[in-house]
Amino acid sequence: MKPPDPSLLSLNTATVKARWNLAQAIEGCARHGIRGIAPWRDKLAELGLKKAVSLIRSHDLSVTGLCRGGFFTAKDWLDDNRRAIEEAHALEADCLVLVVGGLPEGSKDLIKARERIKESISMILPEARAAGVPLAIEPLHPMQAADRACINTLEQALDVCDALGEGVGVAVDVYHVWWDPKLEEQIRRAGRKRILGYHICDWLVPTRDLAFDRGMMGDGVIELKKVRSWIEAAGYPGFHEVEIFSERDWWQRDPDEVMRTMKERHLSAS
Amino acid sequence: MKPPDPSLLSLNTATVKARWNLAQAIEGCARHGIRGIAPWRDKLAELGLKKAVSLIRSHDLSVTGLCRGGFFTAKDWLDDNRRAIEEAHALEADCLVLVVGGLPEGSKDLIKARERIKESISMILPEARAAGVPLAIEPLHPMQAADRACINTLEQALDVCDALGEGVGVAVDVYHVWWDPKLEEQIRRAGRKRILGYHICDWLVPTRDLAFDRGMMGDGVIELKKVRSWIEAAGYPGFHEVEIFSERDWWQRDPDEVMRTMKERHLSAS
Repeated sequence: MKPPDPSLLSLNTATVKARWNLAQAIEGCARHGIRGIAPWRDKLAELGLKKAVSLIRSHDLSVTGLCRGGFFTAKDWLDDNRRAIEEAHALEADCLVLVVGGLPEGSKDLIKARERIKESISMILPEARAAGVPLAIEPLHPMQAADRACINTLEQALDVCDALGEGVGVAVDVYHVWWDPKLEEQIRRAGRKRILGYHICDWLVPTRDLAFDRGMMGDGVIELKKVRSWIEAAGYPGFHEVEIFSERDWWQRDPDEVMRTMKERHLSAS
Repeated sequence: MKPPDPSLLSLNTATVKARWNLAQAIEGCARHGIRGIAPWRDKLAELGLKKAVSLIRSHDLSVTGLCRGGFFTAKDWLDDNRRAIEEAHALEADCLVLVVGGLPEGSKDLIKARERIKESISMILPEARAAGVPLAIEPLHPMQAADRACINTLEQALDVCDALGEGVGVAVDVYHVWWDPKLEEQIRRAGRKRILGYHICDWLVPTRDLAFDRGMMGDGVIELKKVRSWIEAAGYPGFHEVEIFSERDWWQRDPDEVMRTMKERHLSAS
């Protein structure tokens, strides 16, 4: 299989969050010839939206997604998601990534939690459409169902998309979905229309933490080239965003080393 | 919802493995009035099959499952599974639980691994049928796909059952499947014929280890009563087997305390 187009590489700023603020990440992308960036909103708030927009434009970077909206279990979810949509609009982001939240405090009712998520997305969808900001539901790994997101398979996310119509799709993060026996089938079902983002990293064996032990592409067991072939066959033309939460390894390293490794592995291992 | 019949409680010996050998677990069940037991094969080998059969019969316990066959990635998998079938037969176990194994050493090919598992089960199935030992495929949580079992949903396990025919079914362990949006639907599909075992415990928030941090019923977020109602609606009349891997908590406690808690929580929280 042909290596991917290097100009499709994007940095999700979580990958370098321990040592770089957003300005440093933007400048790092420019320095390393990485054309896409996906900022997290805490770092965005730190820098300020206007400065971020201006700095990103001055380096002509594409914003492959804004992380994140969602968390519909939070008290101020509606206002917070409205602000996120405005920010994504200002950044001309390809999508606003929704990490939908898990079980509400004190509840075990997963079915109701999932219903509420669908309703909540439907409530912010008109504003997102009006702002031209596609909403990307990110199915999270089932091990994060209770505390982070109770949308846990691509099939489930696409069922929600089908119920809600235009303006909503999915972010396919290999870390969350690689294990799914229906992955190829559901990527095909999603098609170009629904795939709004493609996130890469790797699954380490052993994995020592349920959230912060992701691997660099090539260091784990995910068949990244095969998954990319499915994504491409579905017609997705967009960026490959590297998102690595790694408390013990990559967050400890010099971010310039991380960027160089990312670039190499994007070509050799994904 | 009515509490469950207390005579349906079964001890999976993993729950007390840190402090009790199999003889102690059998005697513990008898002492606490627990009518079912599911031994692990390492403890069985330690005690000896004949002694185990005799001790279990002398206390008139039901063997709700033998843990475990499977691990089709191991070098001696065929001989080992044959021995497991013989042992399950001698114990008159309700089923032999199959933990099917993850990716073969050095491979990332999940699709091929899954195909190989199906073939391997089909190779031991005639012997299992002849011995009157139902094989129970246990779908494991997706977080264990790489290293323990790459059958990860009930739907996937039932597809394998449908392909293989009679003599094979599933062990439904709430810990592995509670998050699945299709759980109710797939339990209904499985029905009385395919559900060979029902394992309970709880999912803790936070979960601090991918394998050994399970909770006691009632201490986590699984809607155990709801899942039991689905299992019962599907016609499953069998035991509720408590299987708790818990390095930091329950394995540290006096097993008699564990047994008492299990009995209480079976009634109050499952």
